[in-house]
Amino acid sequence: MFSREEFRKMIDHTLLKPWASMDEVIRMCGEARERGFAAVCVNTFRVPLAVRELEGSGVAVAATVGFPLGACMTSVKAFEAAAAVKAGASEIDMVINIGALKDGDMDTVRGDIESVVEAARSAAALRMSTVAVKAIIETCVLSDDEKTIASKIAVRAGVDFVKTSTGFGAGGATVDDVLLIRRAVAGNAGVKAAGGIRTFAEAKSMVEVGASRLGTSNGVALDDEMGRYAIAAPDYRRDRGPGR
Amino acid sequence: MFSREEFRKMIDHTLLKPWASMDEVIRMCGEARERGFAAVCVNTFRVPLAVRELEGSGVAVAATVGFPLGACMTSVKAFEAAAAVKAGASEIDMVINIGALKDGDMDTVRGDIESVVEAARSAAALRMSTVAVKAIIETCVLSDDEKTIASKIAVRAGVDFVKTSTGFGAGGATVDDVLLIRRAVAGNAGVKAAGGIRTFAEAKSMVEVGASRLGTSNGVALDDEMGRYAIAAPDYRRDRGPGR
Repeated sequence: MFSREEFRKMIDHTLLKPWASMDEVIRMCGEARERGFAAVCVNTFRVPLAVRELEGSGVAVAATVGFPLGACMTSVKAFEAAAAVKAGASEIDMVINIGALKDGDMDTVRGDIESVVEAARSAAALRMSTVAVKAIIETCVLSDDEKTIASKIAVRAGVDFVKTSTGFGAGGATVDDVLLIRRAVAGNAGVKAAGGIRTFAEAKSMVEVGASRLGTSNGVALDDEMGRYAIAAPDYRRDRGPGR
Repeated sequence: MFSREEFRKMIDHTLLKPWASMDEVIRMCGEARERGFAAVCVNTFRVPLAVRELEGSGVAVAATVGFPLGACMTSVKAFEAAAAVKAGASEIDMVINIGALKDGDMDTVRGDIESVVEAARSAAALRMSTVAVKAIIETCVLSDDEKTIASKIAVRAGVDFVKTSTGFGAGGATVDDVLLIRRAVAGNAGVKAAGGIRTFAEAKSMVEVGASRLGTSNGVALDDEMGRYAIAAPDYRRDRGPGR
């Protein structure tokens, strides 16, 4: 099992709807700081604001790239990743090229991811910093074979995490997909479950099969739910974590 | 009223789902060429393919930019617009910054559009060519006031069309919104109705209130429907257009 603090360190607190206001972004950054979440996940336009709000907090700013379709040119994704890192993002959540994957054009799929990894790392190096790159494979539009292939390609392209879903597709993370991706990456990358995680029970089951990050717009409620769960379940009592 | 040929010249034949294969893009380009549609509308990754398929056809290639959220950095949108035009796109369908609009930060909304217009036009000038820019305001998440303001800002930023919707939001084009946008742009830009146009009757009602372009993934069926309608309605008989 995991402690409440460990749970919080798995949460990417996410706000990606384009009509989110500055005030909403500021509020979610405050929540992430207070609870010690792993990261906030925002669109690149909101990166400078999130970086400012989270300065000194230890909470990372994760920026989406080529999001949510992944169907823009590779050069555009690389440019966006570099720009986000320059603005202070230390994590990049990029969407792979799903159309190229459907075409069986694996060189393009891999080259696309590699370009983003390279652009992000180069930009981070200039800041004397590091960056984690997550490849979003959008499981809801892939066959199981495609999920496995995409995960393996992403690992070969050097990503730090394979992420299930954008949250903008027809479906989000499932326990089966987390398990499948974990097997495909074989310990060479983390697994981020994202999309539709609404309850602590769901989050817990994702972690139990191998998710090391959870992308959710519902992080505060999940964390509160774990807090209540901790009171009911003695195993959690010693791990209620900070902020209570 | 309008002839069948005029109708075809209003259609942006659209394929934006990220899992569309190369074969699907080639097929839709063939349809657009055969029927003489105004344009095909594709994600930037598919621009080079569409340009190759449509060479010499007179059908424009429209590329989406910052699509569909519009929440990436302005520099990223400008880079994508320039890259698409360099690759041969002659129309750019860019999504405005909806979050900045909600913040009331109209300078950012306007600067964002202006940067795309400028980047697209500069890239087109280098090719001794021209480009039309459409600003997508995503009506389904805006109030009527916001729709009007966004349309006016887009016109001041120099766009050629204001476009209702991405087709990826909760709602698409409505007759009321086309009318509202037409009033806001006051003849200084065209109006593109997009999203959820499934029947010829719907398309016709959009045009009747002022839409000059129709974005639809259903263009072939709409055109066929107009063909059948033309047989039933004498006014259309002389205008059945090519391909019959």
